[in-house]
Amino acid sequence: MRVSNKILFFVLDGASDRPVGGMTPLQDAVTPNLDKLADTGISGIMDTIAPGIRPGSDTAHLSLLGYDPYKYYTGRGPFEAAGVGIDVEAGDVAFRCNFATLKDGNIVDRRAGRIRETSELARSICEDVDVGMNFIFKESTGHRAAMVIRGEGLSADVTSNDPKKEDKPMKEFHAGSPEAEKTAKILNDFVAQSIKVLDGHPVNVERINAGKPPANVILLRGAGLVPNIRPFEERYGLKPAVVAAAGLVIGIGKMCGMEHIGYDGGTGGVDSDVKGKVKTAINALEDHDYVLVNIKGADEAGHDGAYEKKRDFIGKVDEAFANVLDLTDTMVVVTADHSTPVSIKDHSADPVPIMINGDGVRVDGVGAYNEIDAANGGLHRIKGMDLMHILLDLINRTEKFGA
Amino acid sequence: MRVSNKILFFVLDGASDRPVGGMTPLQDAVTPNLDKLADTGISGIMDTIAPGIRPGSDTAHLSLLGYDPYKYYTGRGPFEAAGVGIDVEAGDVAFRCNFATLKDGNIVDRRAGRIRETSELARSICEDVDVGMNFIFKESTGHRAAMVIRGEGLSADVTSNDPKKEDKPMKEFHAGSPEAEKTAKILNDFVAQSIKVLDGHPVNVERINAGKPPANVILLRGAGLVPNIRPFEERYGLKPAVVAAAGLVIGIGKMCGMEHIGYDGGTGGVDSDVKGKVKTAINALEDHDYVLVNIKGADEAGHDGAYEKKRDFIGKVDEAFANVLDLTDTMVVVTADHSTPVSIKDHSADPVPIMINGDGVRVDGVGAYNEIDAANGGLHRIKGMDLMHILLDLINRTEKFGA
Repeated sequence: MRVSNKILFFVLDGASDRPVGGMTPLQDAVTPNLDKLADTGISGIMDTIAPGIRPGSDTAHLSLLGYDPYKYYTGRGPFEAAGVGIDVEAGDVAFRCNFATLKDGNIVDRRAGRIRETSELARSICEDVDVGMNFIFKESTGHRAAMVIRGEGLSADVTSNDPKKEDKPMKEFHAGSPEAEKTAKILNDFVAQSIKVLDGHPVNVERINAGKPPANVILLRGAGLVPNIRPFEERYGLKPAVVAAAGLVIGIGKMCGMEHIGYDGGTGGVDSDVKGKVKTAINALEDHDYVLVNIKGADEAGHDGAYEKKRDFIGKVDEAFANVLDLTDTMVVVTADHSTPVSIKDHSADPVPIMINGDGVRVDGVGAYNEIDAANGGLHRIKGMDLMHILLDLINRTEKFGA
Repeated sequence: MRVSNKILFFVLDGASDRPVGGMTPLQDAVTPNLDKLADTGISGIMDTIAPGIRPGSDTAHLSLLGYDPYKYYTGRGPFEAAGVGIDVEAGDVAFRCNFATLKDGNIVDRRAGRIRETSELARSICEDVDVGMNFIFKESTGHRAAMVIRGEGLSADVTSNDPKKEDKPMKEFHAGSPEAEKTAKILNDFVAQSIKVLDGHPVNVERINAGKPPANVILLRGAGLVPNIRPFEERYGLKPAVVAAAGLVIGIGKMCGMEHIGYDGGTGGVDSDVKGKVKTAINALEDHDYVLVNIKGADEAGHDGAYEKKRDFIGKVDEAFANVLDLTDTMVVVTADHSTPVSIKDHSADPVPIMINGDGVRVDGVGAYNEIDAANGGLHRIKGMDLMHILLDLINRTEKFGA
């Protein structure tokens, strides 16, 4: 009469789909290991947010971790900022940023020619811009970056300077309420100063000489107040880790107080070393109680509308699951954060399959891991926000309500 | 085209479980009668509170009766007090109590040597303690008792005098808020006076002479304000009764205005006369419309971690169900308040099986009464708070919402 005491939580990002010619990629893929887990586990379908609500990866992961996204999701900025490695603090106002190209007052390239060499530019901004308030600006991949402003009297109720379309004038920041006027002023000041710092910067001189658009302005959007999140370990009594390549998922993990465990070979795409990732996660169980593994490739293939690519990547994921079959004392969970149907090329609200395998689960008649079989499972249809409670209960870590 | 007009509601307390070696006790037990009811009824699984929320018997029963435990469960004290037979009133502050042994300021035995002869002690406390406020103190089984204080300006926001561990100093009551200071003062006064009353009491003199620890102090905990509960009959138009041996269940029934029907042979354990209990309940249908029967033994076996004991008790329960098969005009419901897995030895949040048998139910393909088969049933997965509505509708007693 064993009771598992650890949780290994796989998010096959965007793997869930709709049937194409009668089969979903998960049904069509060769998945003997996932099927074996389903056969000896309990399955169901899950609305990660709620029926018909199309989740982002960020809101879905918050929900799967038991943090109500309607309470904690204050905008994309905070999660992007945490994801690029900024140590965000509750009360910071955070933004996702683009390096862009400004010419005669117009934004002529919102990605500055998909520039990659941004670290020197970011450093100069941090060193030479002074808006009378602490800020952290950090480059991310490609033309992307993130920023937080920290201090008293800030507000996230501000518009963006991003015109959203190219060859349109850059906008000014405006306050949405009187409390945000100080913040809008700081942002306008920040943009004006950063234009001066970037203009004539050696990196940009070199780009212009090479006939490339200079990264001479920062566009800031996704403003959000960093929420006050009670750390995962404090809340659940489980030591958590996140194994992921996607910055947004890493950021969510960090904001929930989870240790990020990196590994070589993670790309976030279909070329990712999934076996290495799964091994890293299994090893992490030695000194963690809860390990979330995000495997991103199927989502990429879904966004590309590439059915075979998605199906084949799922097959590759399944091979990496061979090691998972032998785990003991561990509640293994396999689900997705959302569907990314190849027919939609974007996320959709179709429920995701959820499978739980471990000591004491009520094994049902489901013998395959996919959206259609899972719908016949013993879990029926649950919500993302319920999952953490269900898992904690299975490993005997819930508090009794009443006597 | 009959429509049932009465409800016979069986709570097989804690009977629900997890598989052990591939079978749950309900699956493994010999249950021809329960299976026949399932075969001709509709089944499902039910989260008595919500998915992943581990229910107490008290909160679960409230939910099954249609009273939201998040609204009405104000602490254990009120339900214990009602269960021992105190006529609690909305606004009373209620406690569960222990007779304990105090020596040199320390609680040296939290159960006063598991004393049983407490009725004279309780009577003396009621007669000789005067705290300037009405109170009712009543002994329960063993070393247990309950108390309510009644009057203006009381609050349940007080700490306990129970050190929780033995050989620790007794604590003082403290107010958690300014409104509770009067209550804390009354409680400290009550404890000081009751020590004087119990010290030298003939019952304790006799115990000391026999080498037993005296019951010379009262520990009070589980403070709760008795909630204002609209009586079951007023709310649903059905005359209710509860057949139970467990004080907590009797207490909940009484607080909801249900008549408690006693019978000889009820013990709350696996040795209980289940046949007598079921017969009592069937007889009660003659002049009641809704009869809740709580059968406690399986819960006890679950807490003991005793698989065979649990399985065999369920078989004994099934025998008592022979008479239930012949009932007419009655909606028979068989469920549990929570799971008590033998692997956990405590309640768990695993959904419970629910089966409804009566005129007009949509008979599904489920032919056995257990957790696994029920999950394939026509009721799917429901919540405890929905059940009363569903039953009222089946007996044609719901109001239409709209026209």
